[in-house]
Amino acid sequence: MPNKGFDTRCLQIDAIIYPCMDQLDFTGPFEVLARLPDSKFRVLWKGKAPVKDWAGLILTPETSFDEAPQLDLLVVPGGHGQQQLMDDATTLEFIRKQAAGAKFVLSVCTGALVCGAAGLLKGRHATTHWSVHHLLKYFGAIAVDARVVTDGKLVSTAGVTAGIEGALRVAALLRGDRAAQEIQLAIQYAPQPPFASGDPKTVPADIFDACREAVHELTEARLVSARRTAKQLGIEDA
Amino acid sequence: MPNKGFDTRCLQIDAIIYPCMDQLDFTGPFEVLARLPDSKFRVLWKGKAPVKDWAGLILTPETSFDEAPQLDLLVVPGGHGQQQLMDDATTLEFIRKQAAGAKFVLSVCTGALVCGAAGLLKGRHATTHWSVHHLLKYFGAIAVDARVVTDGKLVSTAGVTAGIEGALRVAALLRGDRAAQEIQLAIQYAPQPPFASGDPKTVPADIFDACREAVHELTEARLVSARRTAKQLGIEDA
Repeated sequence: MPNKGFDTRCLQIDAIIYPCMDQLDFTGPFEVLARLPDSKFRVLWKGKAPVKDWAGLILTPETSFDEAPQLDLLVVPGGHGQQQLMDDATTLEFIRKQAAGAKFVLSVCTGALVCGAAGLLKGRHATTHWSVHHLLKYFGAIAVDARVVTDGKLVSTAGVTAGIEGALRVAALLRGDRAAQEIQLAIQYAPQPPFASGDPKTVPADIFDACREAVHELTEARLVSARRTAKQLGIEDA
Repeated sequence: MPNKGFDTRCLQIDAIIYPCMDQLDFTGPFEVLARLPDSKFRVLWKGKAPVKDWAGLILTPETSFDEAPQLDLLVVPGGHGQQQLMDDATTLEFIRKQAAGAKFVLSVCTGALVCGAAGLLKGRHATTHWSVHHLLKYFGAIAVDARVVTDGKLVSTAGVTAGIEGALRVAALLRGDRAAQEIQLAIQYAPQPPFASGDPKTVPADIFDACREAVHELTEARLVSARRTAKQLGIEDA
């Protein structure tokens, strides 16, 4: 496979998993990035005991933070459990330190808020799940209404399924368009969504209201965390 | 949430996992179906020891075949390891028996071949991953070039990512369009694929050839299994 102009050294790609995360934020990018030529994908957490995603799926880390090498790409997924990471000094320090040396950080869905708490969004264009898009400013980010936003080494995506697209974009940045296109064909990503309800701009208003209401309490808790972070980071106007 | 005209009893939904499967064939539908109101999603295999998907992701079953109740929906994912299931009497018998009493069976990607080996495709319209679409006839299926095909209780999907769409379709069949639309918004499934390369009909020819070549050996092995199954099932003209 031609990789002209691209680094052909084995890429170190890891994703953080954690309790009450949203598994597809991680498994979507895993599906794409584990297929990237000349790369090693590891599943990371503080220890190696299995964790459960918010819906009960058992996921098992292979590598602890302490064992991870300097990564080329760190994937930070979201989900309810992201709230527990907002003040988790160990995790935030790991993300901050890895991000400094990494080629890219890929935040998926509300993983952007964790990256924000680690200070990675300051002055960066970014996106996240529609339900918390209004919170991006508290992390000093310039909010962009898009599925995938690339700003320097930060690649951020909208909610859950957008992680697949973010991963394909990063795959192209790391190994070229052709490598990403081959992966996209392998996973037959030529979507035909059954309804027009995947986007707040196209979904019927009553469905949007019901979904926003269903996560209202969580969104309020996330606002509290975001405001606290804004103070810690010295973000003004938030 | 209104469920007029739909069964409001708790639905039993399970997915089979197995060694060398393709994890997104399962985790895509899990993401959708674990959000379905009044339902219980279980992860099934012969025993409860963890298995690794083809790329090394560790997945852990919660329930063994013996412990499973009669299911309303059985999800059968694909991946390289599907080859090992083509003659696996225990698994095929489990699928056959569950399918007889289930409301729906959802086959994702090459999971269709496993369902075919269990006899579920005979006389049914079906689809599967593009690389093995020509093998559907060996299972007595009427091959349809589509992302998702519903024929009676069999819902089959194209490769890997199409499982998300198949799951949304089944969610609508089980709990109504509105429930499926709410899930689609929650997971923000409003895809914008980065390239036009997810479909053999739109991908550049050289990329298609490279991808087909990369799986050539596996496809040949799958042809051998399919021909053997055709004989066992008494399928003529195959």
